[in-house]
Amino acid sequence: MRDWMLEKPTRRGLLLMAAAAGASLAMPRLVLAAAGKSADAKFGGDLSTVRAAIDKQRPEAIKRLQNWIALPSIAAENRNMKEGCQMMIDLLKDAGFQTAVAMPTDGQPGVFATLDAGAPRTVGMYFMYDVKQFVPSEWSSPPLEAAIIDKAPFGKVMIGRGATNQKGPEATFLAALHALKAAGRKSPVNIVLIAEGEEEIASPHFRQVVHKPEVLAALKQCHEVYMPFASQSPQGGVEIALGAKGVIEVELVCSTKKWGRGSADDIHSSYKAELDSAVWRMVKALSTLVSEDGNDPAIDGWFEHVKPLTDRQKALIAERVAHTNEADVKKLLGVQHWVRDLGYRDALERLASQPTVNIEGMYAGYTGPGGKTILPSKATAKLDFRLVPDQTADDAAAKLKAHLAKRGYGDIEVSVTGGYDPTQTDENSSLIKASTSVYTHLGMPVSLSPRLAGSWPGYVFTGAPVSLPAGHFGTGHGSRAHAPDEYYVIESSNPALHGMAEATLSYVMHLYALAAS
Amino acid sequence: MRDWMLEKPTRRGLLLMAAAAGASLAMPRLVLAAAGKSADAKFGGDLSTVRAAIDKQRPEAIKRLQNWIALPSIAAENRNMKEGCQMMIDLLKDAGFQTAVAMPTDGQPGVFATLDAGAPRTVGMYFMYDVKQFVPSEWSSPPLEAAIIDKAPFGKVMIGRGATNQKGPEATFLAALHALKAAGRKSPVNIVLIAEGEEEIASPHFRQVVHKPEVLAALKQCHEVYMPFASQSPQGGVEIALGAKGVIEVELVCSTKKWGRGSADDIHSSYKAELDSAVWRMVKALSTLVSEDGNDPAIDGWFEHVKPLTDRQKALIAERVAHTNEADVKKLLGVQHWVRDLGYRDALERLASQPTVNIEGMYAGYTGPGGKTILPSKATAKLDFRLVPDQTADDAAAKLKAHLAKRGYGDIEVSVTGGYDPTQTDENSSLIKASTSVYTHLGMPVSLSPRLAGSWPGYVFTGAPVSLPAGHFGTGHGSRAHAPDEYYVIESSNPALHGMAEATLSYVMHLYALAAS
Repeated sequence: MRDWMLEKPTRRGLLLMAAAAGASLAMPRLVLAAAGKSADAKFGGDLSTVRAAIDKQRPEAIKRLQNWIALPSIAAENRNMKEGCQMMIDLLKDAGFQTAVAMPTDGQPGVFATLDAGAPRTVGMYFMYDVKQFVPSEWSSPPLEAAIIDKAPFGKVMIGRGATNQKGPEATFLAALHALKAAGRKSPVNIVLIAEGEEEIASPHFRQVVHKPEVLAALKQCHEVYMPFASQSPQGGVEIALGAKGVIEVELVCSTKKWGRGSADDIHSSYKAELDSAVWRMVKALSTLVSEDGNDPAIDGWFEHVKPLTDRQKALIAERVAHTNEADVKKLLGVQHWVRDLGYRDALERLASQPTVNIEGMYAGYTGPGGKTILPSKATAKLDFRLVPDQTADDAAAKLKAHLAKRGYGDIEVSVTGGYDPTQTDENSSLIKASTSVYTHLGMPVSLSPRLAGSWPGYVFTGAPVSLPAGHFGTGHGSRAHAPDEYYVIESSNPALHGMAEATLSYVMHLYALAAS
Repeated sequence: MRDWMLEKPTRRGLLLMAAAAGASLAMPRLVLAAAGKSADAKFGGDLSTVRAAIDKQRPEAIKRLQNWIALPSIAAENRNMKEGCQMMIDLLKDAGFQTAVAMPTDGQPGVFATLDAGAPRTVGMYFMYDVKQFVPSEWSSPPLEAAIIDKAPFGKVMIGRGATNQKGPEATFLAALHALKAAGRKSPVNIVLIAEGEEEIASPHFRQVVHKPEVLAALKQCHEVYMPFASQSPQGGVEIALGAKGVIEVELVCSTKKWGRGSADDIHSSYKAELDSAVWRMVKALSTLVSEDGNDPAIDGWFEHVKPLTDRQKALIAERVAHTNEADVKKLLGVQHWVRDLGYRDALERLASQPTVNIEGMYAGYTGPGGKTILPSKATAKLDFRLVPDQTADDAAAKLKAHLAKRGYGDIEVSVTGGYDPTQTDENSSLIKASTSVYTHLGMPVSLSPRLAGSWPGYVFTGAPVSLPAGHFGTGHGSRAHAPDEYYVIESSNPALHGMAEATLSYVMHLYALAAS
């Protein structure tokens, strides 16, 4: 569910790549050995022993990730949930967490873990142990084998379900804790870590984990909640999203049985003349939800709590536009026109600011080859609604139901299958400041974006009662989340882009930066 | 495609059944031995030798039907078409047709056959040799085994694909020709028979067969075109439909590729804010095709050629209403309300007179369990449009396309996958008069209906240049056409309802009645 914008190449990223083209392809094991030139205490001082530990532990770090990928936990299929939860616990304990326990919910269990390093500062963290469904036959390399292959232009990548979403970055973070320990260092911060196993089904019970008294008490010690993520673009830039849209996923079912009109079952289509149709009813009901061109929500009161972009948010978008080649983005997305033929800046402002009503899928009646003259008794539509501040998931679901009921469609079943509120974090928070300083120190272009058009359950942390800054970003690169051949870069052939070892070191520096902030 | 109203019990039928309840269950082999009391020359005179032949040939008549069912010809799957055409030819020759040849078309071949009995009168006939698709796992008895089982309240029925639609009634008619021959009689009429193998895909090439010069020349000798059919209700009444609606089946495809907007492929749903949706476009386009309640066509000019019911047609419907228990019909159909809460008479008038726009099925995007946050690049809808006189299939398709184009939906692909014009036959034609006289002579309640709400390609005969009365009806009973466990009554336990042998005799009488008209 935590879903993402595709990587968009930035002009700065392209320049960096051009500069790198002349460099030797013989990479040192840790291409960043020469990066942080000064042994800046803010980022951990002289990290040579940590670097050496990362290099030494590389085989076991890779093996740890491969073992994890071999055990897919999929909440939608109720697959390996208990086992996946236990593996998460084992991985955390192995990395130095003194406590790590399963947290039962009405759904799949979460995990609550603490690492007490005796440090003055405590950092909150968010992990997920579940992955998206997959169809092995669609993969070029078996999704649970986590094979490492050459993939241009990146170098060596691991192919597997969860490789980048989210086991790869999480295992890389854990490798940082292992390296610190091997280098004889304590973690510079204490860690309060909360993990869930239902992220890919929209975190329906995650609040139950976070709102447990002991978890809330532990989070009270924290100044932020951070989730590792491989958010470098292929060219090396890091985008830090200051927020994400909320989302609700909804299944609408219109049936003659519930409606009490038409035939209770599918019937010969010749009867249409005297019988009502559940499919036409669905079409007409759906049609009321959006503007004529399908691009603006038209649900009663939908914009009541929608906040417009601030000047600063617009400025961030303008900056992005200035550094982006629109034609490249369009090509990457397979797009010729933005809605209403908007210019790129207006399109990106919509992307950041506009709530959406989307039909993910729908089906009714006969869907095989050719035709079949039936009058179907049922129609199903799957929708997602992206929400922006200050909309809430609960209010959106209530407004949708009220809108349909007001128009006489009260019999259409509305099942909210998952969702959560939007999340937003202040760019002046310690999390954003510290993170930005790390990436800048590493020589990476950093771009802030006001908000992801996609969604992740950060609201559980940014909203009451936790009310902390929260974000997920990081170095390294992976893609094809939710798709076949999901990958994560293990060894990068581009000095501007982190492989797993470089990203491991960056997480070490990140912890020091948070400790110092 | 030739599709039917479900049997609706008539009051007369129910009375007959009640009367029969006291009768002995020990049926003579031919329950009609005592029926046509007078040896009326009009119906073949003394038919005792023919009756004896039917009884004697019963095992081979059943076996012939079973062999035919064992070879399913399915045009939609291009399955056994050549073999099915050849079997049709063999069956006709075996029954006494002197000529029977395949008639190639741009699709599957038809058959043209003639039986010259040296009779003064020639009768046109229409057969089909194809059947509807089937899924064996859905059947309680294998659909190609044509097993004969006990089925209350009918007696012994044959279960198989094509059992009633249309191999059963056709094989029964052929059994009549075999019986005449065995009884030493010539057929009382010459027969010109045209068969097709694409009836179940809406007869896309049937005109090519009928309009061949030699076929048109042969049909010029005929006064009518008749298709055998088991059209007795379970209670024994025969309904003669004087016409049938036309139909076009259409597949609409809205794709971002063709449209040139949105993403060329499915993309993450977060992009909806800046990208157009093919599914919303389909919903909005479909919505323009019907009234707000989905019950009246709203396509530009759709009613231009629609003729209202005549007073006589309304009177026939009123008569039907007077003899029908509306509650029984509603129960049979699983219906609580007719559209707009109409009374039964108004509902039946709509059924006979109203053109319809029906969504048979539609699909787009993700249709599996749960949700998947994608913005689909394509939506498909399958529609059927029932047509009434004087609409035509070609004009309807043109109007649909013009309607969509006028509203800017010209990129939505409109594939007409099949269809044909409405058909209507005069109740004073020799076909209807002769047929009615047979059923009345057999003591069956006959009800005329102005028009089937379903469709069959009778227009090829009733329209120019052939311009003959055409109809399909007959004695016997079967049901579940197009559905699993399709059946045809072989031995009836109800004296009011014909089994295969009684129906065979009725076809003999039918030929004599046509010869005499």
